[in-house]
Amino acid sequence: MMRVAQVFSLLFLLDGSFGEYQPTWESLDSRPLPDWYDRAKIGVFLHWGVFSVPSFGSEWFWMYWQDHSSSYVDFMNKNFRPDFTYQDFAPMFTAEFYNPEDWARLFNASGARYIVLTSKHHEGFTNWPSSYSWNWNSKDVGPKRDLLGDLANAIKEKAPHIHFGLYHSLYEWFNPLYLKDKAASFHTNNFVVGKTLMELYELVNNYEPEILWSDGDWEAPDWYWNSTAFLSWLFNDSPVKDTVVVNDRWGKGIPCHHGSYYTCADRYNPGILQNHKWENAMTIDKSSWGYRREAKVSDYLTIHELLTTLAQTISCGGNLLVNVGPTHDGRIPPIMEERLRQMGFWLDVNGDSVYDSVPWKHQNDSMTAGVWYTSKGDVVYSMVLTWPEKNELTLGSVVTTNTTVIYMLGHASRPAPLPFHPLGSSGVVVTFPPMSEVTGQWVWVLAMTGVTPI
Amino acid sequence: MMRVAQVFSLLFLLDGSFGEYQPTWESLDSRPLPDWYDRAKIGVFLHWGVFSVPSFGSEWFWMYWQDHSSSYVDFMNKNFRPDFTYQDFAPMFTAEFYNPEDWARLFNASGARYIVLTSKHHEGFTNWPSSYSWNWNSKDVGPKRDLLGDLANAIKEKAPHIHFGLYHSLYEWFNPLYLKDKAASFHTNNFVVGKTLMELYELVNNYEPEILWSDGDWEAPDWYWNSTAFLSWLFNDSPVKDTVVVNDRWGKGIPCHHGSYYTCADRYNPGILQNHKWENAMTIDKSSWGYRREAKVSDYLTIHELLTTLAQTISCGGNLLVNVGPTHDGRIPPIMEERLRQMGFWLDVNGDSVYDSVPWKHQNDSMTAGVWYTSKGDVVYSMVLTWPEKNELTLGSVVTTNTTVIYMLGHASRPAPLPFHPLGSSGVVVTFPPMSEVTGQWVWVLAMTGVTPI
Amino acid sequence: MMRVAQVFSLLFLLDGSFGEYQPTWESLDSRPLPDWYDRAKIGVFLHWGVFSVPSFGSEWFWMYWQDHSSSYVDFMNKNFRPDFTYQDFAPMFTAEFYNPEDWARLFNASGARYIVLTSKHHEGFTNWPSSYSWNWNSKDVGPKRDLLGDLANAIKEKAPHIHFGLYHSLYEWFNPLYLKDKAASFHTNNFVVGKTLMELYELVNNYEPEILWSDGDWEAPDWYWNSTAFLSWLFNDSPVKDTVVVNDRWGKGIPCHHGSYYTCADRYNPGILQNHKWENAMTIDKSSWGYRREAKVSDYLTIHELLTTLAQTISCGGNLLVNVGPTHDGRIPPIMEERLRQMGFWLDVNGDSVYDSVPWKHQNDSMTAGVWYTSKGDVVYSMVLTWPEKNELTLGSVVTTNTTVIYMLGHASRPAPLPFHPLGSSGVVVTFPPMSEVTGQWVWVLAMTGVTPI
Amino acid sequence: MMRVAQVFSLLFLLDGSFGEYQPTWESLDSRPLPDWYDRAKIGVFLHWGVFSVPSFGSEWFWMYWQDHSSSYVDFMNKNFRPDFTYQDFAPMFTAEFYNPEDWARLFNASGARYIVLTSKHHEGFTNWPSSYSWNWNSKDVGPKRDLLGDLANAIKEKAPHIHFGLYHSLYEWFNPLYLKDKAASFHTNNFVVGKTLMELYELVNNYEPEILWSDGDWEAPDWYWNSTAFLSWLFNDSPVKDTVVVNDRWGKGIPCHHGSYYTCADRYNPGILQNHKWENAMTIDKSSWGYRREAKVSDYLTIHELLTTLAQTISCGGNLLVNVGPTHDGRIPPIMEERLRQMGFWLDVNGDSVYDSVPWKHQNDSMTAGVWYTSKGDVVYSMVLTWPEKNELTLGSVVTTNTTVIYMLGHASRPAPLPFHPLGSSGVVVTFPPMSEVTGQWVWVLAMTGVTPI
Repeated sequence: MMRVAQVFSLLFLLDGSFGEYQPTWESLDSRPLPDWYDRAKIGVFLHWGVFSVPSFGSEWFWMYWQDHSSSYVDFMNKNFRPDFTYQDFAPMFTAEFYNPEDWARLFNASGARYIVLTSKHHEGFTNWPSSYSWNWNSKDVGPKRDLLGDLANAIKEKAPHIHFGLYHSLYEWFNPLYLKDKAASFHTNNFVVGKTLMELYELVNNYEPEILWSDGDWEAPDWYWNSTAFLSWLFNDSPVKDTVVVNDRWGKGIPCHHGSYYTCADRYNPGILQNHKWENAMTIDKSSWGYRREAKVSDYLTIHELLTTLAQTISCGGNLLVNVGPTHDGRIPPIMEERLRQMGFWLDVNGDSVYDSVPWKHQNDSMTAGVWYTSKGDVVYSMVLTWPEKNELTLGSVVTTNTTVIYMLGHASRPAPLPFHPLGSSGVVVTFPPMSEVTGQWVWVLAMTGVTPI
Repeated sequence: MMRVAQVFSLLFLLDGSFGEYQPTWESLDSRPLPDWYDRAKIGVFLHWGVFSVPSFGSEWFWMYWQDHSSSYVDFMNKNFRPDFTYQDFAPMFTAEFYNPEDWARLFNASGARYIVLTSKHHEGFTNWPSSYSWNWNSKDVGPKRDLLGDLANAIKEKAPHIHFGLYHSLYEWFNPLYLKDKAASFHTNNFVVGKTLMELYELVNNYEPEILWSDGDWEAPDWYWNSTAFLSWLFNDSPVKDTVVVNDRWGKGIPCHHGSYYTCADRYNPGILQNHKWENAMTIDKSSWGYRREAKVSDYLTIHELLTTLAQTISCGGNLLVNVGPTHDGRIPPIMEERLRQMGFWLDVNGDSVYDSVPWKHQNDSMTAGVWYTSKGDVVYSMVLTWPEKNELTLGSVVTTNTTVIYMLGHASRPAPLPFHPLGSSGVVVTFPPMSEVTGQWVWVLAMTGVTPI
Repeated sequence: MMRVAQVFSLLFLLDGSFGEYQPTWESLDSRPLPDWYDRAKIGVFLHWGVFSVPSFGSEWFWMYWQDHSSSYVDFMNKNFRPDFTYQDFAPMFTAEFYNPEDWARLFNASGARYIVLTSKHHEGFTNWPSSYSWNWNSKDVGPKRDLLGDLANAIKEKAPHIHFGLYHSLYEWFNPLYLKDKAASFHTNNFVVGKTLMELYELVNNYEPEILWSDGDWEAPDWYWNSTAFLSWLFNDSPVKDTVVVNDRWGKGIPCHHGSYYTCADRYNPGILQNHKWENAMTIDKSSWGYRREAKVSDYLTIHELLTTLAQTISCGGNLLVNVGPTHDGRIPPIMEERLRQMGFWLDVNGDSVYDSVPWKHQNDSMTAGVWYTSKGDVVYSMVLTWPEKNELTLGSVVTTNTTVIYMLGHASRPAPLPFHPLGSSGVVVTFPPMSEVTGQWVWVLAMTGVTPI
Repeated sequence: MMRVAQVFSLLFLLDGSFGEYQPTWESLDSRPLPDWYDRAKIGVFLHWGVFSVPSFGSEWFWMYWQDHSSSYVDFMNKNFRPDFTYQDFAPMFTAEFYNPEDWARLFNASGARYIVLTSKHHEGFTNWPSSYSWNWNSKDVGPKRDLLGDLANAIKEKAPHIHFGLYHSLYEWFNPLYLKDKAASFHTNNFVVGKTLMELYELVNNYEPEILWSDGDWEAPDWYWNSTAFLSWLFNDSPVKDTVVVNDRWGKGIPCHHGSYYTCADRYNPGILQNHKWENAMTIDKSSWGYRREAKVSDYLTIHELLTTLAQTISCGGNLLVNVGPTHDGRIPPIMEERLRQMGFWLDVNGDSVYDSVPWKHQNDSMTAGVWYTSKGDVVYSMVLTWPEKNELTLGSVVTTNTTVIYMLGHASRPAPLPFHPLGSSGVVVTFPPMSEVTGQWVWVLAMTGVTPI
């Protein structure tokens, strides 16, 4: 008997009229990146799900536990009754403090221009009332609420300039339908036809996300996931066809090769200019995407570490997607709130060097480590990670001219140009103002006009 | 675009080679009833599921509550936190006292020759680890156990002569896939294709039930459920094709018209001979199939009431399916155990009048109320519900002859024939032995040879 | 430093004015037994507490578990998280189905003339909101209700002729104050002064029980418990001084020697006449006082076994205190309800032989086993546990006279005297009526006038 | 009858031999303050209890809820079943992440020289297995652990120079024994005799705290609490008699008048020199002592605010007791950990101005706001809360001399004296170093020798 999935694909083909974009990577990749994404630069990533209940170790809790990782097994043995299953955590996902309006205000204060929420992680639990995940979604058990829809609405009302995006895992570790397809070497795709695709259509049609951040693709090829067919629909016919961007995790071998932008690997931060738009999806908690209770202050990035990553990422043409892990009861932990607000404070002062910027000819300085460049029009920005000794900063990649003017962002209310002296054609030494005159902290930005690259 | 379900049916047809039985009621009804079922007479029905956790009101708890039935709403408001959902009951379905071997021994002691367990009731929760009910089955949440498989094995080991049957609800009240099909007036059947049928195949292939007791059919026609196609597979190709019997609940309008045997309505007990094999599915708790904690002794049938129903049912050609409701922790409540053991005690004494019997010419007596007949070979049995006044029983439907001999079952160890005197051709008066000589209780059976019906 | 307890006793003495009864056993034992108790004959005993939550094994669950009894340890290990304590059961003592009015009606239907409820068992949990058991009582945790007071009121309203009694455990297995006194060989009694006595005064003053059924006395002498001082207050000054009766468990060595009536040991049933009023406190569940879920029908007394015990007990001058164990959710299990109602049915027919009766000269018959005697005025009652073969009962302890008349209780609406023939001076043979004419079941009672004992 | 409590006091008196300190405030107040306390300066306060489970609003949750405060009532109505009691929170006090060794290391890193843990707050729940709080302590329910003892041991092992102190609430809001005494206008004191004092003796004897931080005294006079008798024992005979210090909350009217040191009111920070040793017990969460989940970053003191309070407090002769609220699962939230570590970082650089210091003649500067003084030997320290404009700090309370030398703490590895120019006898202007040369942050400290006060 023919496989249902084949029939399904066949019907799609018979149905015929694909629009502008064909279900091939060649065609899909020809679509220009919607303008807003590159200009936005900064996003907030949210990993929230049933894993937020044990909130121990990692959002991969279920898999690591089943895989006999000892710290997880010990945690369960010590704290739960025998036969307690991961599913038993779901009713404890209470979200009683979830206030999406507050979240929207916080994201706004952080300087983020987009957010990406896990609609469903590898555990399969959907944060919206999916018709395809009965009794394993946030309306039926746990929060008893459309977590996703409520956030979408709050963003629209409280921070309408923030773009709303959704993370979605293609695979589900323990879904028996997936495991059957996998056992059949993916020559059946009942899971995709009956679950994944149905879900994706439901998500896009109901919530109109402008980012679709796909994940969990790596075990199976793109033809198993029907990725190109779905994306052609998304780009041709969906309600967000004009503005949506997608990442690159659409099947084994696809990441870093196809998609609106590339994420390549988690915490991807190449340090050199890339020839395709990319994103550094990284975490404030150095070790986990989901909230984990055992994290100490030393496990979180300091604001300086976060801004260092930001500078490196933006300079090399990437966007920065900063992950925080909400708690089972619906809060963003204060230590993460603090980092987001610190980033927002910094961007208030220094945002000109970030938003709408483009990479400069050089990404980091050739003489002084820890100096990263961006540019916008005729302004070159250098983000300086360490206050220079004796207040003298040497830049090896910048050549000054007669018209050169250099300011520091956040230098007093009426800033004066900074003194500098050229090192011939091999650089310049800029004199920093007294630190006590500077509003900014942690990372300082010079805005230079009338300069040229070496 | 063609409906997937239509394609599915089409593929079935293309696949072609239907066996002996075509997917039409005419063909299916032509299959003879497997012999064992009519001879078995007595079954035990088990309603067990998540409804056994609230165990209040009825196994329809979820529906009645959602339907704003006040006693259910009050129960929830009084005892549970706001936003508590039915799904939250599932983790409390603990079954820690479930001992299927004990159950098998009890069913055996009850005199039952078959059992029927709810594999899945209208709530959709499967008592086996179905691939099509992820996270809403007894292995993933609650018991963490294949309740169904464990009982099947226990029956095989401890009471191998008992036939194992399964109840299965076609519809699921709140399954969003079903509700979508329903909203489409059943012109889509994604629910049936992706859930119901998959489940039925899984059940039959994995557990090989000899009864498939279908239910929950009434909202949709048989063509929505694909009933005839499924049954043709069941009768032609399934592992139980030779022995399986099915009831009649396969679509709107089907009950009492098609199926191996008819159940017509709950507690169907017509009181007159039927021209098609039928079953009286009834309950020891007069008001509920599932266990309900608020039931009092007066809510349970007395053994006399139960045996009265048994006599009526068997006399009219029916089988008796006696329902008990196990508890959330896996017990059969002692009051129900007592009734089953009392029935078993009675059948030990009087089983000759029941097992392998056939209806007699008359079903109940024309002169004395409360006397019901069966027969086997040349023996006519009369089941007498009330000990006659002055020990003299008048039978208006029996004519004695010269060779007439009448015994009472359970009358001493070496019973003597009972005295009787004919009322000409219009009946007979039988003299009962002293009650204190009789082993049996509650209902007394006369075994008569050499008699003819009026 | 003087012990506080000694001071306390001293103050009592200084306070001086003891009433009629001095705090000595000699004086206390001189008090006549209030009349009602001996006439009542039948009571219902209720064991209800936190042990009703695990409802496994026995009401001694806590102690057996701590004592490493393997079935209890296994039960906990299998079903609960590590570090789960007995105290954690208390919030699950929900009593949501507790309906004391229904209970009162049931006790009435059972034929009981008094009830005894555990106010506090050895676990220390009080079923009333005691000031001396903060956070370990039924108002603060679990039922959130004055279980005891609500039953007292319901009895008063629905069955005012039933006397209300309370069980109270002197010791508490794990109360650290008790354990300290015990470690001091009971030469301190902070526990008694601050807890036990305070509680007893609170109970008597607030709820006015007419039975105080003391228990848990055996580890310490009566002077540790201050028993005689308390009882002298109870008999002299308490609000129930005129009607209260107490049992005999007031200190090591006291049971079977002092008290209004004796209980001696659990299920005490000596089979011969006693020279002091006594009570047989026994259980319908053969093995446990508290409800245990794992009990099967075979673990419960049949009604015949229960009536056998009743006959033996009443004949020998005892009262029968029939124990049932309510469930954690406030129900009396139907199998126990059934036994109580069966006993009530029997007493409706045969109560003349029980209530207000006194022992006869002989307690059981000298020739036929299973025949027990009582008497009232000039009537002698024989309770016959087995219907005699050929309907002929031989009594070896009864001598008939010219005026002898013998009836069977429950024999038709207008009973006829039974035929009998004397065996000279050595007994009589009584002919039973046809069993089918008799209303009663299980145990039959003959009422004989004009007879004398051998 | 005499009141037991009176007898108890009497016995104490008869027992006679009071030691050096009589049970009078006059005598008790004559005891010198143990030296270590004033030198220690910085403590960490921990509020941990059952209130850490709801962790909503405040550690006064229970009282506010019972008092119908609407936010608390709403919280309960929304999230819990009807009849849920405060006691039901106790089993959820799990403390599974409690690692007292980690806590000890953190307190050490914070620069604290003592800690004070709530042994029992007004809720009455004891964080040690008290014999006088059966079933309402951390060993019997919830953590199943001696939280207090485990911390005491960890401190001893990991940070032995930190002094271990205990908070203890005299009253318990809802203890029926207390409420009875209160209803009797405190003319009975069964609660004090049977509970409070027993507990205090147990605490001191078993855990040997060097601080006893009493609270909950305000409803009753000291004679009700038997405070002076207890303190005379503590100072004369207890195992900590030589080193223990106590605060001033020992009865209505006592605070700010008697005790080793005064706390007067919560967050007491008078801003002027006091003539008796005092302590500012304050919170990092501006609104609550217990952890509350709804707190945002803006609800926590910034490190600058915390150090401002520190400077004010130490300058005026107070100790600073910084409160953090651990969570129900045993963690110190990272935002609080961060503040403690920031304080520790600051004290590492600037601790010379704090530990072992004494108030100077002036507490804050007469010309520049936000400058606070301490002194040690011939060094005068000024803590400067704001970096001065143009790096020039004017001090109006300091007169320089020929020998004056001024350093900034944390100024480079080999600091140079700072330039200054005297304002005659009316002050001095000190030139700050470039901010970028200074290790310290937030608050800067000048160490001045050869200066005199104006």
